[in-house]
Amino acid sequence: MAENPVRFGIIGCAEIARKVARAMDLAPNSILYAIASRSIEKAKNFAATNGLPENVKIYGSYDQVLDDPCVDAVYMPLPTSLHVHWAVLAACKKKHLLLEKPTALNVAELDQILEACESNGVQFMDGSMWLHHPRTAKMKDLLSNYSGQLNFIHSQSTSSATPEFLESNIRVKPDLDALGALGDSAWYCIGAILWAKDYQLPTTVTALPDVTRNLAGVILSCTASLHWDQPDTTVATIHCSFLSHSSMDLAICASKGSLHVKDFIIPYQEHSASFDFTLDSKFLDLHIGWSVKPEEVCVTSQLPQEALMVQELARQVEGIRKSQFRPDSKWPGISRKTQLVMDAVKKSIDLGCKPINL
Amino acid sequence: MAENPVRFGIIGCAEIARKVARAMDLAPNSILYAIASRSIEKAKNFAATNGLPENVKIYGSYDQVLDDPCVDAVYMPLPTSLHVHWAVLAACKKKHLLLEKPTALNVAELDQILEACESNGVQFMDGSMWLHHPRTAKMKDLLSNYSGQLNFIHSQSTSSATPEFLESNIRVKPDLDALGALGDSAWYCIGAILWAKDYQLPTTVTALPDVTRNLAGVILSCTASLHWDQPDTTVATIHCSFLSHSSMDLAICASKGSLHVKDFIIPYQEHSASFDFTLDSKFLDLHIGWSVKPEEVCVTSQLPQEALMVQELARQVEGIRKSQFRPDSKWPGISRKTQLVMDAVKKSIDLGCKPINL
Repeated sequence: MAENPVRFGIIGCAEIARKVARAMDLAPNSILYAIASRSIEKAKNFAATNGLPENVKIYGSYDQVLDDPCVDAVYMPLPTSLHVHWAVLAACKKKHLLLEKPTALNVAELDQILEACESNGVQFMDGSMWLHHPRTAKMKDLLSNYSGQLNFIHSQSTSSATPEFLESNIRVKPDLDALGALGDSAWYCIGAILWAKDYQLPTTVTALPDVTRNLAGVILSCTASLHWDQPDTTVATIHCSFLSHSSMDLAICASKGSLHVKDFIIPYQEHSASFDFTLDSKFLDLHIGWSVKPEEVCVTSQLPQEALMVQELARQVEGIRKSQFRPDSKWPGISRKTQLVMDAVKKSIDLGCKPINL
Repeated sequence: MAENPVRFGIIGCAEIARKVARAMDLAPNSILYAIASRSIEKAKNFAATNGLPENVKIYGSYDQVLDDPCVDAVYMPLPTSLHVHWAVLAACKKKHLLLEKPTALNVAELDQILEACESNGVQFMDGSMWLHHPRTAKMKDLLSNYSGQLNFIHSQSTSSATPEFLESNIRVKPDLDALGALGDSAWYCIGAILWAKDYQLPTTVTALPDVTRNLAGVILSCTASLHWDQPDTTVATIHCSFLSHSSMDLAICASKGSLHVKDFIIPYQEHSASFDFTLDSKFLDLHIGWSVKPEEVCVTSQLPQEALMVQELARQVEGIRKSQFRPDSKWPGISRKTQLVMDAVKKSIDLGCKPINL
């Protein structure tokens, strides 16, 4: 444990907060210092159910966390429609910010948040845990050094929602998470494709005409394509859905190799994750087989990816606190580009699958 | 070996003919009886290079094969632009027909071929070998019985063409294989998606705006989406290219399970092929893993898929010959639907990615 661990407050006792609370315990440079719900009973119940240590402060309002001078950083798993209000307020109270995805309902809202973070000198990071897994770095290494030009990328994130989820979860409510599966699931697909493309924005984003919505108009399933013209031509497709079996696919086809991973968002298991990488495979004489089969590349990890995410944010906070570093612009930059592309998919859907230039 | 094996003639000494000649030897109910090239020297050279038995007849013109009364069936790996002429002629000479893909430049041409086969009572089959692999039947079994509704399908077929191929191969020549990568590679992707959908035609086919052509206008790479509205909504994407590393992906995401295969067209090795199948996987508590990892389903095969294809055609020919069966309409039906969808992709490309209704 670090000497002065970064003290986290959690605003909102969502299901995902259980996982991130555990991550704050696992990360060596952070502690869970306080939790808040809109009611003290809900917060107490969360603490009891999840066996939080007795010294974790329990608050019955979000403001109390933001007003606590001992809280260094805030994790905010609130419905998306509440992000702009609470995230701006947190930044103004000088709290570093770990914000669940999607970061906002649109990039204009996100820009308010990012400007508040910038002007208050606090670090911003969104909750894309997979970016912090060492597997992700290993994949990038192989793609950058061996694969050649990326020609085609497909990513999908699907889950099979229960009838209860489809009835009452915040992610299908227009006043809470109006982006539905696009915000909840395609966020990862867009993020993975931008990651593969070294965060070069696509030239054009086009939705495909297969949007499924619930009665309130919230997207339950959709598909889109992304295109890059310069300097290299790349096409990518994304698919997200609350109506399919669990899938978390990323498949990259480049000029010299290909990469396949089926669990890129949440690895099948915590301490070891793998992907398939195929390089320079040719067909055998007579085309009766391949010269090279995919190699399964395994990457182990002492800490789960969400703890590595918390550790990275805490590392930034320590740097800012001790050495008066400026916040790292990498993380808000990634979030903003992801949000920009998500906005473009939404706009294309709203305009009947018209191509949107970025 | 069967008592009266079906006697095959091969018209055109293309590279792929080497593989299929071997398949005719491996299949228990067929023999390679004759080969023909446009020059007797080329045919002799093919026979010598590939160690064909001395009793294989060697002809210096295609007509000689069609006029040989001992030839029961013809395998035709000719450039696509020549299919309609030679395939119709073969059918009129009462030769059963194994026609390389793409079957024709468009469905109007294919219909001429199929009508000639129909009116002459000969069996038609295209050269989609993968349909005959027992892995394909196993995948269909699992999809039909366990997976639920198919929601999203992605298929791609890419290869890294050499500079010589891109310069001079028939597949990039507008007068020979005018459909380029669409005909050569997307044929499989379209076929796989139709196969998954039990050959229900899509409602709409839409090309995506990333077509790469050579200077002569032949497609080197393209992407398209297919949509089904009724009775179930399905969306599928295909990608084909001569400009990427080898890939042969089929990924199916259904309501209750998912299937992934990376070598569906040519298995990595001859006598054993596998795919990944995931059924009813949920996320563990805290979403720190999956309850079920993909199962690798292995399927062994005594004969390679191309020999099973030849065996199946020969079986049909035997049935027609001995028992006066009518030719099986299944195989021409599959080819025609694949060609129809390919035509729609081509039309959408030509119309600037306009959706084409089928």
